[in-house]
Amino acid sequence: MESYENIHLNKREGQHLYIQLYKAIKEMVLGDVLKEGDRLPPVRKMSKMMEVNNVTVVKAYEILEQEGLVYKKIGSGTYVSHREKEIKDNLGEEVDSNKKITLMEQGQIKIEENMINFASATPSAELFPVEDFKKVLNEVLDRDKGYAFGYQEGQGYYPLRQILGEYVAQYGINTEIDNIQIISGAQQGIDLVSKALLSYGDYVIIESPSYTGAMAAFQSRGAKIIDIPLQEDGLNLDILEKKIQAYNPKLLYIMPNFQNPTGISYTQEKKEKLLELCSKYGVYIMEDDYLSELNYYSEDIGNLKQMDDEEIVVYVKSFSKIFMPGLRLGFMVIPGNLHGRLLRAKHTSDISTSGLLQRALELYLKRGTWQEHLRYMEKKYQERFDKMNDCIQRYMPTGVEVIKPKGGVNFWFKLPNNYSSQTLYEKVVKDNVVFAPGNLFYLDNQHGEYFRLSIAAVNLIEIETGMKILCRHIDSYINNQEPINRGSFIKPIL
Amino acid sequence: MESYENIHLNKREGQHLYIQLYKAIKEMVLGDVLKEGDRLPPVRKMSKMMEVNNVTVVKAYEILEQEGLVYKKIGSGTYVSHREKEIKDNLGEEVDSNKKITLMEQGQIKIEENMINFASATPSAELFPVEDFKKVLNEVLDRDKGYAFGYQEGQGYYPLRQILGEYVAQYGINTEIDNIQIISGAQQGIDLVSKALLSYGDYVIIESPSYTGAMAAFQSRGAKIIDIPLQEDGLNLDILEKKIQAYNPKLLYIMPNFQNPTGISYTQEKKEKLLELCSKYGVYIMEDDYLSELNYYSEDIGNLKQMDDEEIVVYVKSFSKIFMPGLRLGFMVIPGNLHGRLLRAKHTSDISTSGLLQRALELYLKRGTWQEHLRYMEKKYQERFDKMNDCIQRYMPTGVEVIKPKGGVNFWFKLPNNYSSQTLYEKVVKDNVVFAPGNLFYLDNQHGEYFRLSIAAVNLIEIETGMKILCRHIDSYINNQEPINRGSFIKPIL
Repeated sequence: MESYENIHLNKREGQHLYIQLYKAIKEMVLGDVLKEGDRLPPVRKMSKMMEVNNVTVVKAYEILEQEGLVYKKIGSGTYVSHREKEIKDNLGEEVDSNKKITLMEQGQIKIEENMINFASATPSAELFPVEDFKKVLNEVLDRDKGYAFGYQEGQGYYPLRQILGEYVAQYGINTEIDNIQIISGAQQGIDLVSKALLSYGDYVIIESPSYTGAMAAFQSRGAKIIDIPLQEDGLNLDILEKKIQAYNPKLLYIMPNFQNPTGISYTQEKKEKLLELCSKYGVYIMEDDYLSELNYYSEDIGNLKQMDDEEIVVYVKSFSKIFMPGLRLGFMVIPGNLHGRLLRAKHTSDISTSGLLQRALELYLKRGTWQEHLRYMEKKYQERFDKMNDCIQRYMPTGVEVIKPKGGVNFWFKLPNNYSSQTLYEKVVKDNVVFAPGNLFYLDNQHGEYFRLSIAAVNLIEIETGMKILCRHIDSYINNQEPINRGSFIKPIL
Repeated sequence: MESYENIHLNKREGQHLYIQLYKAIKEMVLGDVLKEGDRLPPVRKMSKMMEVNNVTVVKAYEILEQEGLVYKKIGSGTYVSHREKEIKDNLGEEVDSNKKITLMEQGQIKIEENMINFASATPSAELFPVEDFKKVLNEVLDRDKGYAFGYQEGQGYYPLRQILGEYVAQYGINTEIDNIQIISGAQQGIDLVSKALLSYGDYVIIESPSYTGAMAAFQSRGAKIIDIPLQEDGLNLDILEKKIQAYNPKLLYIMPNFQNPTGISYTQEKKEKLLELCSKYGVYIMEDDYLSELNYYSEDIGNLKQMDDEEIVVYVKSFSKIFMPGLRLGFMVIPGNLHGRLLRAKHTSDISTSGLLQRALELYLKRGTWQEHLRYMEKKYQERFDKMNDCIQRYMPTGVEVIKPKGGVNFWFKLPNNYSSQTLYEKVVKDNVVFAPGNLFYLDNQHGEYFRLSIAAVNLIEIETGMKILCRHIDSYINNQEPINRGSFIKPIL
């Protein structure tokens, strides 16, 4: 206890007392004055020692916990965590920098006007059918008046569910309207499934790399994530079976077509076997279909849901990539026996999705404008896709590996060993080109040698220009300079 | 184990195997063949015995768990629960009736065209400023084009946060724009705070009765809820302090003005002491302000957030009651140190709220149309409020207690002992009048002697007509008939 006597909080300083206390304890942890496993004094004891309010201590402990420096055991107290080197990198930073969480750590990125943006996997504003959508919005308002602004049924506006049922039927999925659940975007779908299926301590299996937003949702439930490295045709099923046997997971989260970030697709055979395997062990599958419509060269584009006789697949469909992300609309096709649980999760999350936007989308789909827009997007994206393949062939230095997808918007690259895409990023961004460093897609935030280029938000000229700049930097980086060791990446706080 | 031999699943029957298995086990539980604490066979063992897939057993066990008939211990197995009598009522029901969860159990209610609706606390469609909102929607689309449909910043559209900062300043809350978080309705706010603050096993204190949607959100996090009975001027602070000392809760959830469902408001003195108490013990407060703007006769309408020097109050503001519920828009004023955690929770939940609707609301607020609409709503609601008070005085039978609020839209009643508002409901609904039975607002789903009448969705004529019908039924029920014992209410599945 003695060491705490050296902490002196100063009420007259500009800085909040809890920040002062947080910093003092942090220094003790990083300076090894407090060791791994040491218990911090209970809140009331500490507040007496420091002559401050309990709330000051609580807040200080919370920031420490948030930074992973300490952890709580229920009913027992607060303990110093096992430390990793990276933590030290933060030292000295002002901590009102709760606010300085970098955007990229949250799966966001700041794009300046003049940047060439290979980082975003969502289409840019000029591709949106604004005028057509404005028309249907106004028609809905004239037709439904105030009813467009009332609460909508939790499961979603019935006519919209009806027409979405017809939409998925085109992709081989035959379902009842009752098994379609409207969601405020695919991320909400993932969150709802997590709420419905996962309790504290449950296991989830994911592909590695995968979509960070899904990992965050699982972790938020207190679930434990097992990641299995992707192969070029999907997950290795032998490894998957072993992991299922070992961990008895509740859920498998996958993107079987044009996976994000790798662009990898499963073969039809693998899809079938995967389904069989999960049926055998009673593992639910969340199939995240974020853009299988954008298929240019694959003949193997079937989804899992269409083969789901055992009703173990939750099919989550986003409109963000193929339509407009800001609508925050998507839907799920769910197993009948999850109906009640998912509806309750929806109610707990946001009651229902905006009725106005649901009604407008329904009218938009009914008009057939949708199919037209989809063909337009496909054409646009395929031009970019071909252009990107062309640029890779012409400009990408030898030594950089690439997985060539057959559709979608993402390309996945690997730098030669021990070169870091984060370091590359810092060079390239100075020339106004941005992309997504690979570590962002890994559970352990490692594997910095990978990176993702997306063609969703760049036109043909930008692809040409951007690839020239990027590849020049890669060339100079891997051919003229010492490789940098891994480990220096930003840590995600989630 | 022997008893399971009597189960015979028939693959050729129309019913799914998992339903057949579920029913068979349910009968064994209800028939006391399986006793409290008995362990069900592990999934693989059971599937061998029954000669079915694992997934069939998993699904059957899940439905049993969902119905509270069995529970799981992590890493140990599935056990028969302590049973309550009510469970038996469900027996014999078809269980594809996952789908038949009654609406009211989800905090919803089905309203027919010709019904007098005292049940809904949200305004009806004819009160919405549809034309004005249509105008700003179109202006936004013409001005921002595709950008209105791009992803919005997770924290919310900046100009909207700016103008909301000015809005709350009118109510005494001075905050930085950085501490305003846009949410897709107040329910999402509650969900985000739960995600940010609550882990498995944490304690939350709530008022009793309270808003069911909040309880569901806390329970979904695995938190434990302590409810404290409300007094006519708010929570008893001595009891509160004792509960805080005993349970060390993370969060207190309250509605200090015109509480839902009771209409109770805290005195200014009590608000101050409450804040002091929670500061002392380091307990965060979630202040749910769903309609303090609708103040007709109170002089004591201050909020907690305006006195929140220690930054422990999360102020959650809904627009559903005073504007339009279907927009799914609200906001929070948060303590600076929760900024990062709430933003991450938002990202995990739905990335961001619809940009189009945020931009339209910003323009609507900027035009000043808002203040005009608010005055209109206040006037409308006050007329109804006065009318309701008048009808209570004229028609409500002696023996029924009522708490008279000074604002808002809710009135809270108590039938004489052992009379059930659920029974009353079943009588009154036949005459096309509906209201909210009180048990829906309690954690234990008891206290059926209470009920709530709301004036949000009824006009003056409907109030007069509806109250006559309702009070006639009450009179005949409590004066001519045997009281009904409690315990027969519908159980919530949450």
